[in-house]
Amino acid sequence: MPLLIVEGPILKDKDKKRDLIIALTEAASKTYKLPREAITVLIKENSPENVGIGGQLLAERIPRCR
Amino acid sequence: MPLLIVEGPILKDKDKKRDLIIALTEAASKTYKLPREAITVLIKENSPENVGIGGQLLAERIPRCR
Amino acid sequence: MPLLIVEGPILKDKDKKRDLIIALTEAASKTYKLPREAITVLIKENSPENVGIGGQLLAERIPRCR
Amino acid sequence: MPLLIVEGPILKDKDKKRDLIIALTEAASKTYKLPREAITVLIKENSPENVGIGGQLLAERIPRCR
Amino acid sequence: MPLLIVEGPILKDKDKKRDLIIALTEAASKTYKLPREAITVLIKENSPENVGIGGQLLAERIPRCR
Amino acid sequence: MPLLIVEGPILKDKDKKRDLIIALTEAASKTYKLPREAITVLIKENSPENVGIGGQLLAERIPRCR
Repeated sequence: MPLLIVEGPILKDKDKKRDLIIALTEAASKTYKLPREAITVLIKENSPENVGIGGQLLAERIPRCR
Repeated sequence: MPLLIVEGPILKDKDKKRDLIIALTEAASKTYKLPREAITVLIKENSPENVGIGGQLLAERIPRCR
Repeated sequence: MPLLIVEGPILKDKDKKRDLIIALTEAASKTYKLPREAITVLIKENSPENVGIGGQLLAERIPRCR
Repeated sequence: MPLLIVEGPILKDKDKKRDLIIALTEAASKTYKLPREAITVLIKENSPENVGIGGQLLAERIPRCR
Repeated sequence: MPLLIVEGPILKDKDKKRDLIIALTEAASKTYKLPREAITVLIKENSPENVGIGGQLLAERIPRCR
Repeated sequence: MPLLIVEGPILKDKDKKRDLIIALTEAASKTYKLPREAITVLIKENSPENVGIGGQLLAERIPRCR
């Protein structure tokens, strides 16, 4: 602990995942004054069929998006 | 925000997902007196091998279910 | 299971909580074709100091809100 | 309710899942003095590309792990 | 990681919390073949006004409970 | 969406919360190429009696901490 859970869309690029984890770990380490080793990040990828925004499926709201 | 996370079994039918998202968004919008656009819904689908009820795997409790 | 977790602002009114739980339970029961007894709802109330939208504290974005 | 959510690495072995669910259900049942039937467990499996520990991807921290 | 999140009713007794944490840590350590130090447990206590089971507030379903 | 949930210890300082929210929003906005307005952050504060690390209560592991 601390733990950060990111609920986002699908993220194919491993480099983006790495960059996100570095940035979040850095921010949490600074806020809580804890070493980076104490910070865990979980990236959750949600299919656009399983996300609703404003009562619409993300899959139908932005059909070209993925 | 608000955000609603649904932890349920696998739901193959896209129409069912859409209907669920509409109903949950409607209910949250009414309760919090916020426009629908403010409401996010995430549907999480759990494999029956990863769910335990009463100490039994859902996969073994209802073998025909999926 | 299914379980619905609602992450929202503070909700003082018990009647609103009851109404929300009824509506969410009804919707989930219909979608998953499961009896109401199988559905659990958890309402999480988040202090406006602990919510960020668009990089701003909810407490500062809507100062009159609670 | 109670509900236990386990965020862990990928767990291929169904027997291990069953054993984990039994042990967690037993522990929760004892603590809350509730029958096992009231306890739900969800096992979440996270890809090593989606987990960051100490600012490093789990996939890169332990490359042989899966 | 692994992380275990327990969503349960209010649990006043610190000894019960300690016992629950020990049992869950033990079980996860065994399943994932990881040292205890790698396991984090979060106990979440939910007010009976914020829990719905079968469409009823827990506060009204079991009025004597707390 | 995206949504970031931070499970951490108690964080009394409002400025720290604001800084954390800004940093996390910035990072997520960059990764997902979405405007800041799309990003929500929830900070969850966990009492040291409700956190277990390595099978020990955080309250007992670091008694002076809060």
